[in-house]
Amino acid sequence: MPVQGEFKTIQKIKEMLLPLHRKDVKVGIGDDCSVLDIGLEKEYLLLGSDSIVEGKHFLYNMPDRSLIGRKAVGAALSDVAAMGGYPLFLTVDLGVPNYLEREHLEEIVSGMRFLLDLFDVDVVGGDTVKSDVLYLSVSVVGKVEKEKVVLRSGAKKSDWIWVSGPLGGSLYRRHLLVSPRIPEARFLVQNFTPTAMIDISDGLVKDLFHILEESNVVAELVKEKIPVHKDAKNWEEALYMGEDFELLFTLSEYDSQRMLASIGALPYRFYPIGKVVDSGTVGLYLRDGRNCYPLSPKGYEHF
Amino acid sequence: MPVQGEFKTIQKIKEMLLPLHRKDVKVGIGDDCSVLDIGLEKEYLLLGSDSIVEGKHFLYNMPDRSLIGRKAVGAALSDVAAMGGYPLFLTVDLGVPNYLEREHLEEIVSGMRFLLDLFDVDVVGGDTVKSDVLYLSVSVVGKVEKEKVVLRSGAKKSDWIWVSGPLGGSLYRRHLLVSPRIPEARFLVQNFTPTAMIDISDGLVKDLFHILEESNVVAELVKEKIPVHKDAKNWEEALYMGEDFELLFTLSEYDSQRMLASIGALPYRFYPIGKVVDSGTVGLYLRDGRNCYPLSPKGYEHF
Repeated sequence: MPVQGEFKTIQKIKEMLLPLHRKDVKVGIGDDCSVLDIGLEKEYLLLGSDSIVEGKHFLYNMPDRSLIGRKAVGAALSDVAAMGGYPLFLTVDLGVPNYLEREHLEEIVSGMRFLLDLFDVDVVGGDTVKSDVLYLSVSVVGKVEKEKVVLRSGAKKSDWIWVSGPLGGSLYRRHLLVSPRIPEARFLVQNFTPTAMIDISDGLVKDLFHILEESNVVAELVKEKIPVHKDAKNWEEALYMGEDFELLFTLSEYDSQRMLASIGALPYRFYPIGKVVDSGTVGLYLRDGRNCYPLSPKGYEHF
Repeated sequence: MPVQGEFKTIQKIKEMLLPLHRKDVKVGIGDDCSVLDIGLEKEYLLLGSDSIVEGKHFLYNMPDRSLIGRKAVGAALSDVAAMGGYPLFLTVDLGVPNYLEREHLEEIVSGMRFLLDLFDVDVVGGDTVKSDVLYLSVSVVGKVEKEKVVLRSGAKKSDWIWVSGPLGGSLYRRHLLVSPRIPEARFLVQNFTPTAMIDISDGLVKDLFHILEESNVVAELVKEKIPVHKDAKNWEEALYMGEDFELLFTLSEYDSQRMLASIGALPYRFYPIGKVVDSGTVGLYLRDGRNCYPLSPKGYEHF
């Protein structure tokens, strides 16, 4: 039987790789990064990985190939942001087809370089291998203070749901122009206590469901509160189109009121879009004026 | 101009990624793993990455697909062994073609599982993406005591050259049946002081040249001392066929005499195959009785 759908594949692989041997794994497969207690007094190590493949995530004959490198590195860095952490080191595996031109490789690496310089991150290893398609596999090592790490599983009833920017329309171009929300994530964990966080790669609804499932709670989004990106062709894209790479997080009622009270004075803009309304079961609703509709976890299907 | 040859590609990428931003990188791209001083008192973090691709490193229609998983994980673990360290965590990125059958995926993961169980290592993250070809990209995080880390660059004049097992014939089958020499490497660094080390993936001569170039020394191999594997069809395979995954290392004259004196009592078998005969320049010679031939770094070309 062919392997169908990312979720089932990941579930199957995850099951086959359990139980774990090591007690220093605080969080393994299933969050944006794994959380590793490797012997540092105050910090956990974060470890994540992301792949992008020609023909699936980008086309070889795109005008600006630096975006290929930026996307690959940006997606990995975004995973660290989603844990509340900061990135340190990357490894990059490159599958190199025989039609890859040297100047195109240089464009790709220059796109990586842009983000490395922006966030003081270094590529410290990798592998280059022949391949029939161009692929980039980027692994990232980061750190986060032990008391500041944010998982997907901590959302509580009465928490508010927030995003770090307007959503929708990303696939027309922005999905490659990834700007990992590391400064925003660091600001959040240093000044507030996010109870759950994820980066939006599969679409608001689908990624919110990851939080809801891991936290076992029910949420309600408020349609008119959802910030829709100017690139979006319709507001449903803000719900279902993937690859925004904005942070999606929950804050307690108390923290949310604090954030709301100072929103004009914050260095970053955050948008409250709904609330966690129940716990003990999983569900999501969209409030549109006096109506309220159930939403299902059908985002943009990556796989 | 198409990208030609692994070495040039890696060199080019390496140049484009320098200078590094971070002072905690003790060794970056260019050794088997990077060496990272992340704040542990006694240990460095090791970080490495390896990719294998269908059609280049293995065929999809092979009888025992568990070997695909074993090779991918084994090659990554072998990189940690080559630094004198021990592995802790892996991430695995999987490029999944639409013809991948679920039971074949299970075979692949079972091959990984074999090595995970053998070495108490955990897969803690990764990414599964659609791809036109099956690929596996494995990143590894390990540790090594600061005073025990072994680089490629420390070989000195009068050091002896050693290998951890017979060479040659690996590509007929053994290249997938990787047995990373972690116990051997740990035994070595705990009881001796290897001055340089690498794992043989590109062939004895080619990998020895990495040590010679990084150490800026000249070596002489002794033909009758080189252990030839029973799978080899001729002794040249011991020089040039890749993918043996044995350790190749140098020991001081003093340590070499110590090892030689106790060789029957050691838990692992090591073979002295030559010596470092000069420094200040790079070269390699093969002594065959009274004759001595120069060797050039032409191993099995991966790329």
